[in-house]
Amino acid sequence: MAPSVEELTQHVLKGEHRALAKAISIMETRGQSSRQLMKLIYPRSGNAFTIGFTGPTGTGKSSLVDKTIEEYRKRGRRVGVLAIDPSSAFTGGALLGDRVRMMEHTLEKDVFIRSMASRGDAGGLARAARNAIRILDAAGMDPVIVETVGAGQTEVQVATTVDATVVVLMSQLGDEVQAFKAGFTEIGDLFVVNKSDLVNPSKTMYNIASGLKQREDGWRPPVLKTSALKGTGVAGLVDALEKYRKHIDEHGSREKMARAKIEAELVETAYSDFYRETVDRLKGQKDWDLLVDRVLKHQVDPETAASQLARTIRKLDG
Amino acid sequence: MAPSVEELTQHVLKGEHRALAKAISIMETRGQSSRQLMKLIYPRSGNAFTIGFTGPTGTGKSSLVDKTIEEYRKRGRRVGVLAIDPSSAFTGGALLGDRVRMMEHTLEKDVFIRSMASRGDAGGLARAARNAIRILDAAGMDPVIVETVGAGQTEVQVATTVDATVVVLMSQLGDEVQAFKAGFTEIGDLFVVNKSDLVNPSKTMYNIASGLKQREDGWRPPVLKTSALKGTGVAGLVDALEKYRKHIDEHGSREKMARAKIEAELVETAYSDFYRETVDRLKGQKDWDLLVDRVLKHQVDPETAASQLARTIRKLDG
Repeated sequence: MAPSVEELTQHVLKGEHRALAKAISIMETRGQSSRQLMKLIYPRSGNAFTIGFTGPTGTGKSSLVDKTIEEYRKRGRRVGVLAIDPSSAFTGGALLGDRVRMMEHTLEKDVFIRSMASRGDAGGLARAARNAIRILDAAGMDPVIVETVGAGQTEVQVATTVDATVVVLMSQLGDEVQAFKAGFTEIGDLFVVNKSDLVNPSKTMYNIASGLKQREDGWRPPVLKTSALKGTGVAGLVDALEKYRKHIDEHGSREKMARAKIEAELVETAYSDFYRETVDRLKGQKDWDLLVDRVLKHQVDPETAASQLARTIRKLDG
Repeated sequence: MAPSVEELTQHVLKGEHRALAKAISIMETRGQSSRQLMKLIYPRSGNAFTIGFTGPTGTGKSSLVDKTIEEYRKRGRRVGVLAIDPSSAFTGGALLGDRVRMMEHTLEKDVFIRSMASRGDAGGLARAARNAIRILDAAGMDPVIVETVGAGQTEVQVATTVDATVVVLMSQLGDEVQAFKAGFTEIGDLFVVNKSDLVNPSKTMYNIASGLKQREDGWRPPVLKTSALKGTGVAGLVDALEKYRKHIDEHGSREKMARAKIEAELVETAYSDFYRETVDRLKGQKDWDLLVDRVLKHQVDPETAASQLARTIRKLDG
């Protein structure tokens, strides 16, 4: 017999790996059980420091996450990790090599690693990820690390769900470094130039740093160098992360950011639910087929037709 | 004095490059002018065959698009190209190298290339791309080619806006090939193994082909090999594209797909407009702050709060 949501919650709070895996799967399905589970889990969450690792592919991000886990373990911390692969429509899931390599950690009791992939919308993936973070948080994992594969819309969305975003770069990306800067400065709280054993990172570090400003709360994002391969610089990265954690706690920016994040999440989730509840009714309206026909015959353009529909949506009875 | 929307439309219909660039910029802003412009442009669109090139990075996709443009030019066709870079939050725009290289074509009167990037949502980018395609179409460009950078949510969305999707792969992606197959088979109408001069593509071609089925309309996606570097196989690709175009016209699948695409576009655009029109009012409700506070204090979980809000959205008066 399947355990009840209450029983599952008890096992989650004890940090049992099978329960964590099961609970995260439930959050991915977004059914009735996911809502019941979140009701029980959410009051027990909110303690973990959450860290996102992001940046272009090929910078050794996964290896750096591995070393960061090890460093946190040395410091006696229990670590939860979500590896998110938004390109799953192409890969049919997170890349196998990565997943297997990461799973080596999961033999350890105090490290839990899970890959998440979604064929659904980016919004749906972000929603499941936020709730999966809460599950690991309630299970006593701290920090919870979110690693995203590649660079794109989903990564930006995931970045808005964590306390600290680490942007991982490397030297010799050529033209890209310049171009990257513009967008990166907005989402990175810490910057890392990895693979520093291969190429002298000084110039890249300088380029990045010169694009960064001190934030309103007094934080200036540091630019660090690491070699995940040789394990150098990782302790420094974890020190910087902990310094940032202290900074946002002391300057009230964590609370402020938490409010902004919750507001964004509520709006996004509510509209997504509203959409799911009303879209069939919209398509069931008697003039729906007629409107589509008129657009297909180029009698009315899609923008005009859509704004007519937007008015119809307002009148749909829940 | 800025030209009126009517004047701009006349210049667009003549295929003048500056007018095309201006018109596409207007579509990106999504203002009042964009709606006026689409009203005038849309009745003149609907003739072009639209082709999307997608697939993982590093497969030489951009070079293959370049060669495809050349091949279509040899056949006396005017070609419109949109290069879409959804990772713009990271890059601050399409990668410069690519853009500059592609612009070399734009010196030619009958080729128009434009890169599009968006810091907004993936949905907004898809919407602007659809309307930009219509502008190039109305200007007499045929085919209109859409090239997406990388593999992710946006690419999948863009794939749903074109008539034919070409998935570009290469040999020796190792484990990925197997994994890729699952998702690729769903969006590809033609498959290309590029860089066939570097590695024997037979095994990769076989792997891909073995995952493909004949579609309901009788089309079996072909697997082709090209070397964009050496220019081999490109004429064969264009032949296959034209064969596909003929196939979907003759089997009524183009019309069927057009309906499905318009339905999806109308729903997506209408909900997006509805969101923009109502979200401020939602946040202005008197119990909004209270609800956010309760979530922040962990008195109510976000899923429950969001479903309350979804009910509120229904009652918002347009």
